[in-house]
Amino acid sequence: MSTLRIPEVVPSPTEDSQTLMKSFKGLGTNEKSVISVLGHRDASQRKKIRETYQQLYNKSLIDDICSELSGDFRKAVMLWTYEPSERDARLANEALKSRKKTITQLQVIVEIACASSPDHLVAVRQAYCGLFNRSLEEDITANVPMPVQKLLIGLVRSYRYDKELVDPDTANAEAAILREAIRTKQLDNDNFLIILNTRNVHQLRATFECYKQNYGFSIDQDIKSCGKGLLESILKVVIWCIDSPEKHFAEVVRASVVGLGTDEDSLTRAIVTRAEVDMMKVRGEYFIANKTSLDNAVIDDTSGDYRKFLMTLLGAKV
Amino acid sequence: MSTLRIPEVVPSPTEDSQTLMKSFKGLGTNEKSVISVLGHRDASQRKKIRETYQQLYNKSLIDDICSELSGDFRKAVMLWTYEPSERDARLANEALKSRKKTITQLQVIVEIACASSPDHLVAVRQAYCGLFNRSLEEDITANVPMPVQKLLIGLVRSYRYDKELVDPDTANAEAAILREAIRTKQLDNDNFLIILNTRNVHQLRATFECYKQNYGFSIDQDIKSCGKGLLESILKVVIWCIDSPEKHFAEVVRASVVGLGTDEDSLTRAIVTRAEVDMMKVRGEYFIANKTSLDNAVIDDTSGDYRKFLMTLLGAKV
Repeated sequence: MSTLRIPEVVPSPTEDSQTLMKSFKGLGTNEKSVISVLGHRDASQRKKIRETYQQLYNKSLIDDICSELSGDFRKAVMLWTYEPSERDARLANEALKSRKKTITQLQVIVEIACASSPDHLVAVRQAYCGLFNRSLEEDITANVPMPVQKLLIGLVRSYRYDKELVDPDTANAEAAILREAIRTKQLDNDNFLIILNTRNVHQLRATFECYKQNYGFSIDQDIKSCGKGLLESILKVVIWCIDSPEKHFAEVVRASVVGLGTDEDSLTRAIVTRAEVDMMKVRGEYFIANKTSLDNAVIDDTSGDYRKFLMTLLGAKV
Repeated sequence: MSTLRIPEVVPSPTEDSQTLMKSFKGLGTNEKSVISVLGHRDASQRKKIRETYQQLYNKSLIDDICSELSGDFRKAVMLWTYEPSERDARLANEALKSRKKTITQLQVIVEIACASSPDHLVAVRQAYCGLFNRSLEEDITANVPMPVQKLLIGLVRSYRYDKELVDPDTANAEAAILREAIRTKQLDNDNFLIILNTRNVHQLRATFECYKQNYGFSIDQDIKSCGKGLLESILKVVIWCIDSPEKHFAEVVRASVVGLGTDEDSLTRAIVTRAEVDMMKVRGEYFIANKTSLDNAVIDDTSGDYRKFLMTLLGAKV
């Protein structure tokens, strides 16, 4: 499911650290060499490289990347090099600190809460406290107005059971509760939110399926008919991230490249956070939805080392 | 702050395991020997004994304790021997499955959520999923009626910042929000609950102090005046567990021994869960509140090996 290509024989963390240090040295940086190392290592390998680099040179690899690279390329490589929990804590913080808080920013928080494992979500919350001296929830409370605040807080605090266990009766009964809240447009209703933020994702997928069978429309379509506000938009992302994260991320990539200009932050996030998770599937969903390949979209909308790096994560030989 | 007495020279986990196995062997059990080993080891030492016992005899130490001991003594030794996160997951489950769900049962959940570290609370939620194939929140939803359900779910899902960081302006502003909810008797109000279940405990203590200074009465006194329902009782426990866990546990011990008969489950829980945490302080608070010693209360209301075990955890030489 990952698009990452890791060589059959992987150099030791010491060799990788030396290659990176060499590529930073002197005037200019050897970007190709940075891509060829970091773009072909998985999370645990990158962690070892970070640790070894620190030991060998008494310097942070992330700091060196920050001072040696630039632009969107720098941001992508930095996000890729952070410990994933720290990366997501930083992405969440950036979203909460941004002046605009539209769906483009806030969906980051939904992705972390609904399209990651329960243990990853907890690790992000722990990292957030360590980095920013307050909890993720406190920053949501301070920066996001009600009722979206209530929805997001409920989601980031979830610790869902993570095995595939589905009770069809519960699915049926809870589809009815969801339906009633949507029919009466009470999308911040406690019973409605508790279902979305306590049930395991397999149970919720069954509940959404029941919803469609019993009421004719999919739950995200029905939520859309409640209004065009931020709450409805975020709820649609919640449903997608639970029901089919790969569809959601295909849509993030599409939205980032559509029209004039590119939303590099969203494009980078989608590829960096999913390359090791489900990028093969994201690519498939992208093709189904857009009748063109995700790789072509990236090639068309990016350039230079940034393009090379993203394409490397997508498994291309650059 | 712990009342546990650990010998200066601690036998190896292998020696301890052998002593335990020997005390279980043959007709009858050498309870004294079980107490002298387990009652003088801290959590990390007990963990090693559990692991070593399993390796040496291919049997679970907990299972052997269960089959060799009996009554309240058995329950106390088992709770003491479990990994603390598993112990608390089991205690929470027992509370949620009990037929009666009064404050006596449900306060267990508040203790885990408000009088433990954020990391311990997360570990309990993880253990709960592993043991019971569903999340703690799902069982709260299924077993506790609103509005107490909403309060408990909010609390168990918290991951508070755990350093001492207090903002006096926030304390003042949030004391006013708490006051307004109490004045209008809206104790399940979202803003009220979000403060209680997102802020760090040091911040909350400052907020409670502001409350008292600004409005004349302590917040738990004011909550009491809202009514005598389960919600008010649980909220009082929340405030105490955040403000002064040792006062809360002193009260649990007092309530367990007062009048005719003893609530052994509560007494065991208070001593087993706090012996390594703050039992010295609990003992001090008990004396202040009751003008008699906690040790005497335990001696008066218990007997036999159960008494010996609890007194051992309280640091007595039995």
